[in-house]
Amino acid sequence: MRNFKLEIEYDGTHYSGWQEQNRSKKARTIQHILEKTLNKILREKIKLTVAGRTDAGVHALAQVANFKSNTKMPFDRLRWGLNCLLPPDIKITRIKNVSLDFNSRFSAKSKIYRYTVLNRKYSSALLANRVYFFHYPLDIKLMHQEAKALLGKHNFKSFQATEKRQREPMRTIKHIKIIREKDLLHIDLEADGFLYNMVRNIAGTLLEIGRGRFPKGSMKKILQSRNRRLAGPALPAKGLCLLKVKY
Amino acid sequence: MRNFKLEIEYDGTHYSGWQEQNRSKKARTIQHILEKTLNKILREKIKLTVAGRTDAGVHALAQVANFKSNTKMPFDRLRWGLNCLLPPDIKITRIKNVSLDFNSRFSAKSKIYRYTVLNRKYSSALLANRVYFFHYPLDIKLMHQEAKALLGKHNFKSFQATEKRQREPMRTIKHIKIIREKDLLHIDLEADGFLYNMVRNIAGTLLEIGRGRFPKGSMKKILQSRNRRLAGPALPAKGLCLLKVKY
Repeated sequence: MRNFKLEIEYDGTHYSGWQEQNRSKKARTIQHILEKTLNKILREKIKLTVAGRTDAGVHALAQVANFKSNTKMPFDRLRWGLNCLLPPDIKITRIKNVSLDFNSRFSAKSKIYRYTVLNRKYSSALLANRVYFFHYPLDIKLMHQEAKALLGKHNFKSFQATEKRQREPMRTIKHIKIIREKDLLHIDLEADGFLYNMVRNIAGTLLEIGRGRFPKGSMKKILQSRNRRLAGPALPAKGLCLLKVKY
Repeated sequence: MRNFKLEIEYDGTHYSGWQEQNRSKKARTIQHILEKTLNKILREKIKLTVAGRTDAGVHALAQVANFKSNTKMPFDRLRWGLNCLLPPDIKITRIKNVSLDFNSRFSAKSKIYRYTVLNRKYSSALLANRVYFFHYPLDIKLMHQEAKALLGKHNFKSFQATEKRQREPMRTIKHIKIIREKDLLHIDLEADGFLYNMVRNIAGTLLEIGRGRFPKGSMKKILQSRNRRLAGPALPAKGLCLLKVKY
């Protein structure tokens, strides 16, 4: 028996997320398509464990999942075979043999998500499904300063979606980077874990700050309030991408 | 009467090109959607003249088209209105007032097309509709050397699609750049004009050279032969993008 670690790249635009949230059986999920393809190639029932269950429309550059199997198939052949059968918007980028106790969800030390905003006067056709278009000018320096309040271990209830089952809200944000690259603004968050909609709510709050709608000191106040209503809006899924999972 | 110059960005994946080649009326073309949207906003029948009629699946970062109208609508408002009504994969990036004798097709001095190859062992989900995946190792230095044979004014019959109406085959290639950017290889061609499929045929020939299937000196021989059958295959449309039109 071996434990296989997969790195998976996907464009989430046409999927209901990694797995269906509402348990309707008809939804097209990334997990379902991957397991179906693995079953076909390995001729055994495969169950994937995943690092981060991304929502509908969210992308991944390097999602991590693992499964156990007795197959002797070489990694290069397995990757090639999977990528031939998978749709163009889901691809396996790496396959590695890991120890049997490795669990892509529980062994993860941290995850890095990137939220990308297109910040100029007109939207982009080539980036339509990858970025959130926001045309108001942004005070990036202020956004940097305010974002610092989020670093470290905090109760992130203010940035947790209220409509979902509430989870234990303590999380540790290890790094926040705000990177301007021509008209694009990347907001990179590294944390030991994320609450539902946490990145999209933080990014939405940062844009309100950058735009001048929330005064200086707001981020700290919002965080301490533990009140979701004080934070900015959740930004659309299409701007979000799981960049990396660290073990 | 004013003459409006538009710069247009589009993802060609879901379109039958700028205009329908086979004249079937049902095809979804970029020109048709743009003219329909202009008619709706300006409340007059608009006829667009375009710089380069791109094929089905080909993208544009800055296609140029122009039209004449008496409208007094400010450019910013016109662009905003158009972009609100246009689908997400077609966007107007710039609008400019130009002299009445400007014709986006005949006034063009040169066009720059980029063909992008993903050159690594596994394909990419996020770039699926934007690049051509080619997993064989490439000798970029040799590709550079061979590409130089194309510079200048030549008969490019060897790189013209045979199935289409043949056009006068003299063209001048002003610049060729082959740029390696991590796993991506960009082949940039600037010419006073392009024959049908010319960029895709040249890119296909360069890959055969880089892969070692065509020996040193091939490009010059193929060019001089004026025989399409000696060149490499036409690469798929999805890797091609019209970057810029110069006036």
